[in-house]
Amino acid sequence: MNAVLAPRPLVMLNQTGAEADVLVGSAGLPVALAADSDTPPWLRAHDVDVLFTGPRNGWRNAPATAPAGWPGRLQWVHVASAGIDFFPPWLLQVPQVTCSRGVAAVPIAEYVLTALLSHQRGWDALRVAGAGPWRETFARVDQHLPGTLQGRALGVAGYGAIGREVARLARAFGVRVTVLRRGVALVEEGGSHGGGHGEIGRVHTVDSIEKLLAASDHLVLALPITAQTYHLINAAPLAHARPGLHLVNIARGALVDQQALLHALDDGRLSGATLDVTDPEPLPEGHPLYCHPRVRLTPHVSWAAQGAAELTARKFMANLARHVAGQPLEDVVDAARGY
Amino acid sequence: MNAVLAPRPLVMLNQTGAEADVLVGSAGLPVALAADSDTPPWLRAHDVDVLFTGPRNGWRNAPATAPAGWPGRLQWVHVASAGIDFFPPWLLQVPQVTCSRGVAAVPIAEYVLTALLSHQRGWDALRVAGAGPWRETFARVDQHLPGTLQGRALGVAGYGAIGREVARLARAFGVRVTVLRRGVALVEEGGSHGGGHGEIGRVHTVDSIEKLLAASDHLVLALPITAQTYHLINAAPLAHARPGLHLVNIARGALVDQQALLHALDDGRLSGATLDVTDPEPLPEGHPLYCHPRVRLTPHVSWAAQGAAELTARKFMANLARHVAGQPLEDVVDAARGY
Repeated sequence: MNAVLAPRPLVMLNQTGAEADVLVGSAGLPVALAADSDTPPWLRAHDVDVLFTGPRNGWRNAPATAPAGWPGRLQWVHVASAGIDFFPPWLLQVPQVTCSRGVAAVPIAEYVLTALLSHQRGWDALRVAGAGPWRETFARVDQHLPGTLQGRALGVAGYGAIGREVARLARAFGVRVTVLRRGVALVEEGGSHGGGHGEIGRVHTVDSIEKLLAASDHLVLALPITAQTYHLINAAPLAHARPGLHLVNIARGALVDQQALLHALDDGRLSGATLDVTDPEPLPEGHPLYCHPRVRLTPHVSWAAQGAAELTARKFMANLARHVAGQPLEDVVDAARGY
Repeated sequence: MNAVLAPRPLVMLNQTGAEADVLVGSAGLPVALAADSDTPPWLRAHDVDVLFTGPRNGWRNAPATAPAGWPGRLQWVHVASAGIDFFPPWLLQVPQVTCSRGVAAVPIAEYVLTALLSHQRGWDALRVAGAGPWRETFARVDQHLPGTLQGRALGVAGYGAIGREVARLARAFGVRVTVLRRGVALVEEGGSHGGGHGEIGRVHTVDSIEKLLAASDHLVLALPITAQTYHLINAAPLAHARPGLHLVNIARGALVDQQALLHALDDGRLSGATLDVTDPEPLPEGHPLYCHPRVRLTPHVSWAAQGAAELTARKFMANLARHVAGQPLEDVVDAARGY
């Protein structure tokens, strides 16, 4: 039975759609595609070596503890999301787990810039549907001129692919960008910034969320949710917020203590919040964030863009080629950091 | 009576507000400020040498023909607007007329980018106010993914200060920019682009509005209204529009044949129009552009920004210093071109 010496091809299961099937099929790699089925992905651990899966592929119903025999013959799991918080913690018992960091950086950064411009310019209140509102709105704007985005200060918490793309675009508008480094959330990636302040390229850095809130007209949350970042934005740091600050969250709802946010909006400390994410999603019917006049709530769609599945499949394929060649994978999830 | 040989100071009338009064008062120039009054500005032509005025300073009620003795002792009029179409044609009989081109380039360009991003991303339809709409909107976006602004094609008709700032910002988003040169509207400013195509810096150029419409996912009108540009966008060029084009007009309403625009929107050729200007302003009550589902109409506010009056006053002051020094003025209106 062991007379055949040619190496067994890798068996992989792709649960993310046709894009990756096509790429794998045409790549000429020694990889066999297993058929997907209704069986939950964690019960396929004894059938496949490689799993390409996403938060929607049944993981919401995963058991709290690892199934017997997990991780079976699984060598590597690649997830189609940037975060791993939608998966059970025992996913990380697989020898290697990689993620799709940066795949949605462009659409998410465009969402953030739309939010910054809309809020700064009062965009939502400019549309008129008659001659009376035309005159009234003109008079109101003429009396209370909006600020430009040029000259404003943007804080970026989380300086990965999304945070960097947001910062790059904002700088094109003449925005001063400040980035959180060495905060409760971020691991210092080398170099000291003596006194906790410094420069990364053309962005200013601070070392606490309080300083970031105090330095920002707009603040964007673009960091992973971990035990360290849970409720990063709560009542204590919000007390340091620059008056009139606009908060944008495109990362995870649990980064924000929603009750503390509501208080800061109600007492006028914050001028607004644009929330693409909440905790939970969706919020229960009647939650005060749904209809708060200073809140724009969108249904976790900032990632959405044509070609997103194709980009994710290509990112997986590049890692698959590395895996077959025995090279180190990119975008490996660090179990200790939690992202 | 002529024994005093010291030169008579220039007498100027400022109708635009305190910003210019303060600047003139502290500049140490041999300029005397005349008091403003209820007298229409054109009846002050025998009292003052220099007039700094704006469209709102009574010019709507100007006579069709020049008053007797016009332009009197007026040497120079500076207008606080970029265009001169709100003034009577005989204003240009004053030896020199200058305008405030470029003063609002930043706020107007920010308005345009907000329009491009909002339209491209379906921004207005993303807001949800309950758990049901949250799920429905997520499912709709997931099924019909929006495009990113990155990779789209922007046409710019009118490449002055506003058009250039729009192009610069759009390029930061990875937008391909095409500019109209040598069209019906534009005077070629030197150099041949053999075949009517060429490059200005990093932008592509075409030589007709038809080619610009065919090359554009978004098209921004940023040119002056003249006899040559009246109804530049009419039914004939609109037939060449790239399917799904989004038109943005921040210049003057009469650049567009509004009936032809409505037809192009109704038959689906255009996916939308963002109009900060119309003809007339405001449109009569009940005009179909007010409530068209593909139209966003705002009340001529794209210029509005804190500091606008200060910037305009500084532009005037720089010209006043040149005038006193006998140097050529900047932003002189060319009577033959009409802007």
